[in-house]
Amino acid sequence: MAKKAIFYHAGCPVCVDAERRFAEALDAGKYDVEVVHLGEDKGRIGEAEKAGVKSVPAMVIDGAAYHINHGADLSALR
Amino acid sequence: MAKKAIFYHAGCPVCVDAERRFAEALDAGKYDVEVVHLGEDKGRIGEAEKAGVKSVPAMVIDGAAYHINHGADLSALR
Repeated sequence: MAKKAIFYHAGCPVCVDAERRFAEALDAGKYDVEVVHLGEDKGRIGEAEKAGVKSVPAMVIDGAAYHINHGADLSALR
Repeated sequence: MAKKAIFYHAGCPVCVDAERRFAEALDAGKYDVEVVHLGEDKGRIGEAEKAGVKSVPAMVIDGAAYHINHGADLSALR
């Protein structure tokens, strides 16, 4: 069964590029990728923070946070 | 044909974790992933730097550098 991966972003150029690259590059048979725009969906900032996300773009895989380059700090999105 | 992706690391815990996650998560049909240990293969630090890598772990896909979390600065590996 595919594991869940969540890609958090905020629409920034760094985010869009990373999404294009990573959300598409992941093996769809292994990972089910959900893309969340924290600028539009602020209600999910808390959930991202709990998973260890400090900036976007970031990918949470199996509960572990991976920051991919740096677009914006989470604190700037509230 | 699979595109080339290079995962640069230096054996640090952050690197090993990111490698386990990303080098394996990429779709093998789309990406041919080469793993380079810059601590052991210092001759390739220049190539990584040219691709825009500033710290490890990092993944270079189609010539673009993506830093995944932060293990060590490239300058610390010379």
